[in-house]
Amino acid sequence: MIIDLEPISRRIDTKISKKKRIYDYLTKINIQIRSLCGGSGTCAKCRILVQKGNQYLTPPSQNEIKLLNKQELEQGWRLACQTFINEQLIDNLESSSQPQIIIFLPDELLLEDFNILTSGINKGVEFNPVIKKLYLEIEKPTLEKPIPDLERIKSSVLKVNKEITFNFELLKIIPKILRESDHKITLTFWNDHKVIAFEPGNTVKDNFGIAFDIGTTTIVGYLINLNDGKVYSTASMLNPQTAYGEDVITRITYIKDNEDGLKKLNSIVIEALNEIILKNCARAKIQSNQIYEATIVGNSVMHHISLGLNPTNIGLSPYIPIVQHGLNVKSKEINLNISQQGNVYILPIIAGFVGADTMGVILSSHIDEEKELTLIIDIGTNGEIILGNKKILATGSCAAGSALEGAHINDGMRAAAGAIDSIKIDPKDLSVSYTTIKDKKAIGICGSGLIDAVSEMLKSKILTRSGSFNKEFINHERIIKRDKNTEFIIARKDEDDLIKDIKITQKDIREIQMAKGAFYSGTKVILKYLNINPEIKQIFLAGAFGNYINKENAKFIGMIPDIPSEKIFQIGNAAGIGAQNCLLNNELRNKAEKLLKNIKYIEIATKKEFQKEFAEAMYFPHLNLDYFASLKEYTDIPKR
Amino acid sequence: MIIDLEPISRRIDTKISKKKRIYDYLTKINIQIRSLCGGSGTCAKCRILVQKGNQYLTPPSQNEIKLLNKQELEQGWRLACQTFINEQLIDNLESSSQPQIIIFLPDELLLEDFNILTSGINKGVEFNPVIKKLYLEIEKPTLEKPIPDLERIKSSVLKVNKEITFNFELLKIIPKILRESDHKITLTFWNDHKVIAFEPGNTVKDNFGIAFDIGTTTIVGYLINLNDGKVYSTASMLNPQTAYGEDVITRITYIKDNEDGLKKLNSIVIEALNEIILKNCARAKIQSNQIYEATIVGNSVMHHISLGLNPTNIGLSPYIPIVQHGLNVKSKEINLNISQQGNVYILPIIAGFVGADTMGVILSSHIDEEKELTLIIDIGTNGEIILGNKKILATGSCAAGSALEGAHINDGMRAAAGAIDSIKIDPKDLSVSYTTIKDKKAIGICGSGLIDAVSEMLKSKILTRSGSFNKEFINHERIIKRDKNTEFIIARKDEDDLIKDIKITQKDIREIQMAKGAFYSGTKVILKYLNINPEIKQIFLAGAFGNYINKENAKFIGMIPDIPSEKIFQIGNAAGIGAQNCLLNNELRNKAEKLLKNIKYIEIATKKEFQKEFAEAMYFPHLNLDYFASLKEYTDIPKR
Repeated sequence: MIIDLEPISRRIDTKISKKKRIYDYLTKINIQIRSLCGGSGTCAKCRILVQKGNQYLTPPSQNEIKLLNKQELEQGWRLACQTFINEQLIDNLESSSQPQIIIFLPDELLLEDFNILTSGINKGVEFNPVIKKLYLEIEKPTLEKPIPDLERIKSSVLKVNKEITFNFELLKIIPKILRESDHKITLTFWNDHKVIAFEPGNTVKDNFGIAFDIGTTTIVGYLINLNDGKVYSTASMLNPQTAYGEDVITRITYIKDNEDGLKKLNSIVIEALNEIILKNCARAKIQSNQIYEATIVGNSVMHHISLGLNPTNIGLSPYIPIVQHGLNVKSKEINLNISQQGNVYILPIIAGFVGADTMGVILSSHIDEEKELTLIIDIGTNGEIILGNKKILATGSCAAGSALEGAHINDGMRAAAGAIDSIKIDPKDLSVSYTTIKDKKAIGICGSGLIDAVSEMLKSKILTRSGSFNKEFINHERIIKRDKNTEFIIARKDEDDLIKDIKITQKDIREIQMAKGAFYSGTKVILKYLNINPEIKQIFLAGAFGNYINKENAKFIGMIPDIPSEKIFQIGNAAGIGAQNCLLNNELRNKAEKLLKNIKYIEIATKKEFQKEFAEAMYFPHLNLDYFASLKEYTDIPKR
Repeated sequence: MIIDLEPISRRIDTKISKKKRIYDYLTKINIQIRSLCGGSGTCAKCRILVQKGNQYLTPPSQNEIKLLNKQELEQGWRLACQTFINEQLIDNLESSSQPQIIIFLPDELLLEDFNILTSGINKGVEFNPVIKKLYLEIEKPTLEKPIPDLERIKSSVLKVNKEITFNFELLKIIPKILRESDHKITLTFWNDHKVIAFEPGNTVKDNFGIAFDIGTTTIVGYLINLNDGKVYSTASMLNPQTAYGEDVITRITYIKDNEDGLKKLNSIVIEALNEIILKNCARAKIQSNQIYEATIVGNSVMHHISLGLNPTNIGLSPYIPIVQHGLNVKSKEINLNISQQGNVYILPIIAGFVGADTMGVILSSHIDEEKELTLIIDIGTNGEIILGNKKILATGSCAAGSALEGAHINDGMRAAAGAIDSIKIDPKDLSVSYTTIKDKKAIGICGSGLIDAVSEMLKSKILTRSGSFNKEFINHERIIKRDKNTEFIIARKDEDDLIKDIKITQKDIREIQMAKGAFYSGTKVILKYLNINPEIKQIFLAGAFGNYINKENAKFIGMIPDIPSEKIFQIGNAAGIGAQNCLLNNELRNKAEKLLKNIKYIEIATKKEFQKEFAEAMYFPHLNLDYFASLKEYTDIPKR
């Protein structure tokens, strides 16, 4: 049988023996889960989401029922240490070539808050890193063979069949190291031919790379051992550029308006990267000069600023970046504190508002290998849409997303402890039940909570399909009318002992309408311009936020097309995994350049159809209910 | 007919019309001689040396007889403006494919003291410089075609059929320059594919390169226009490293003994190069950022120090350099003040004591194309020997040369104004007649004077073949005996109104013996190790000093093998011309690497035969007179 692990590893063919726990299975494919309880099912650190094939697994244990709430169990959340393949069914599974079980490994398994190391060997890419080390004992020179240092080294390498070049700066250290180490040295190769480090003795085991995902709001760095492909440490931090503007446009404005603006924003982001490097190195107990390559994904503006390139023209019509292709620059050219001669690879960007992060998503999602037409929406501070399969690939950007990260929302917040992440409303009395992240006292609402709130408010008919408060309920005690901004109270200060009431306002609803309308109408515009028979068969939700979303509710508010929920998959921080994969497999860089030639970029907002499509998609779920035929509940919900 | 101009241009096929002056002929092949007299034969700035085919030229004019001394006229020196092809003979010349006239253009024609511009077009290399410029009008971006800056530029270039890469740093300046210049820009290509400069408007005409010859004692820089190949300016200066040691070994010692020794010697030589750049730029009225490439030749130690590479191991057995192959480094990597992203190419070195200068000599001399076995001796502060033809190529270094530059010689000096450069001794009364450079009062003796002095002292039997003063003359008034160091007075203080007597001492004779013995025995050792039938048919004398040498006398003292004088040619600063040629023709770099594989390097001094050969070659002209059978005068000169 095939088990397909998302997103850490896609398409792994392996046989599973009977009675194997998923937990052990993960260990077998090199995902070491350092759970606190040692696999006894009490710490709940090994949460996984079964996306397909629940019927082949043992039912939830007592511990799972205790540690996971009802909603989680319904969605398919399990503890890996408590979940076994069902013995009775396993023999029937062997034959099919399609994965019968798809398991999503959430980002927490990778993130620093969780004491878990994960492996990259099986990330759906062949392990063929761009950095390789080679230990050599070099022949010593004699009067009979007075061969220069570099040429002796080269001929030693030639014995193992490689033509090489040396970075010039290395020549300065060669003679001393060579003689002090008794001619026993280790070479570090970039892309098999370029020597970028020259170290005394045998240092083959010290070989690391770091993959960065530079988001508008958050920066994550994954430290990866390039000998075994394992993630040794992960560290993240707030992008310090947020002090100069919360979105890319305000940062571009800052750069335009301040002579040293670019220099300042560049240096603080590089400082942040260097801090993440140090954090990871301290945790993994390595030196930063043992990191020989960094890969970077980020949107076009983050890409430009990180490289010290002026992003001004990205902010002005026709939104032109300086460069599109993937770039290799020396670490010291951008002041990144890895190995002196280390390489930094930045993935190609697709357009002014579809950046290297989207290329990362494309690479890690393997959308270009899908048979069926697949939609990916990547929900971050900006929103990107990817539509494609093995025949066609198109992308576009929409002015959406940041509302779903809690920005411009009255009580909005990012998905952190205390954020309301799921909501239920009882249609009878409009009473609200909710859960918060880490079960802390509620302090705000995160993206998944917002989608739940709107969806539940629709189902309870508090909202009309046009997004206005339903006048029928205008006098309900949970609905408060202030000037033009009516509010619905989700959590009461007094009842739940909170700092303040937490509510959804009419303005919040408009923000969410615009965000979800932008995704849906953007998708439609791209489909139209692809000029193919538009039938989306599969949806991937990317981005940290995508992980926690209630798929049914996302569909219910009309954010994504109406397809069966079992064809909607969370794929986590696919951009960051794209950056990791580029460390693990050298060939992906060529693949990215090839894809670049074939990706159609659609400038959605400037298309004449867009305004009409957008206006129609502002309705819940859409002006035209035929598009959401499966959502029977809408028959009762008033249009205005 | 073929006229062959050494060293500016070798192998030029061209027809010469009747009655053409050599002067006009030079102008025709783009060597502009800005003589002070306008070609009237009175300033004597256009001195040339006819090495072959004197019989086809008109005899010396009255002006030539007045301005050139007898010895010069005998050697074949002429004034180019006074020398015509002989009308009667020209028709007979047309048929042969061998050059019937070979003319040597001395270094003065290139040097700053002489107000002469020379051309490089015909330097025996096809004009195909590594730097090329291209003016482009780039398509502007639109919302329909929102193509990034770099990709629009690339596709413009693709129309002229070039795949290109951009230096990363250029990306930073592209957007501003592109828009400020209304998308009209000029690209500078290195090696046809790498863009190293990005300039607004059309700057195609501003395209320069500079070729450096970094000698132990002197540094020369030739500024060349890379659109037409002409030398626009030449500047030279004393190598400021001489303050830290007059030869390479003392400089290596300085570096070994001082922690910042390498840094200091590196920075002063780079400062000197930058000063030469500024001098040339001022003269040619250009900016230093219009120079896009520098080429460098120099011995292995100068090579290393200029690049900031530690030369210590070159000074220790087995004399190992760090690198042998030719290197391309960015100008800013070595702080050379040419274009920001300019390239510096350093020719490959052959061994610890046979450097990039020797590779320059090999490239410019075309020794690898000669049918006959040819010997090149390059006489500078170090001495190098090259032996080869189209089938074989070998080099070696000998501890010789600096005596011939005046070092370690009591009254020795470099070839500058006031140096005695030719000497005649009357065997009857041992009276001396001499000439000095620029006819100034004598202040010392330069290399050619030393060779003349020894040669004449032998012919007058003042010296024996073993190099001792002949006891017969010990009481002559010009011979003074002090302890063990007998002296022969060349010029008397009183007679010639000098600051002091100028003399040759016994110790001086020993120095010269060692130098000439080293060249001769070195050549023999190489011949032996080549294991070929040793018959040298042709000799090229390279190096500034080689230009002024009296070939007969060089042979007479046994410095070079006994072959007919018409087969001995001065080729001037062949190393510097090699560096120039590498600017003019890109292909020479590949050729240098190919040659490198085939050049046999012979470590002369460590060969067991060397001591015996050296001891024998210390005799004048040699212990075995059979080797110099043509020198009949030796029958009378006592052996000891």
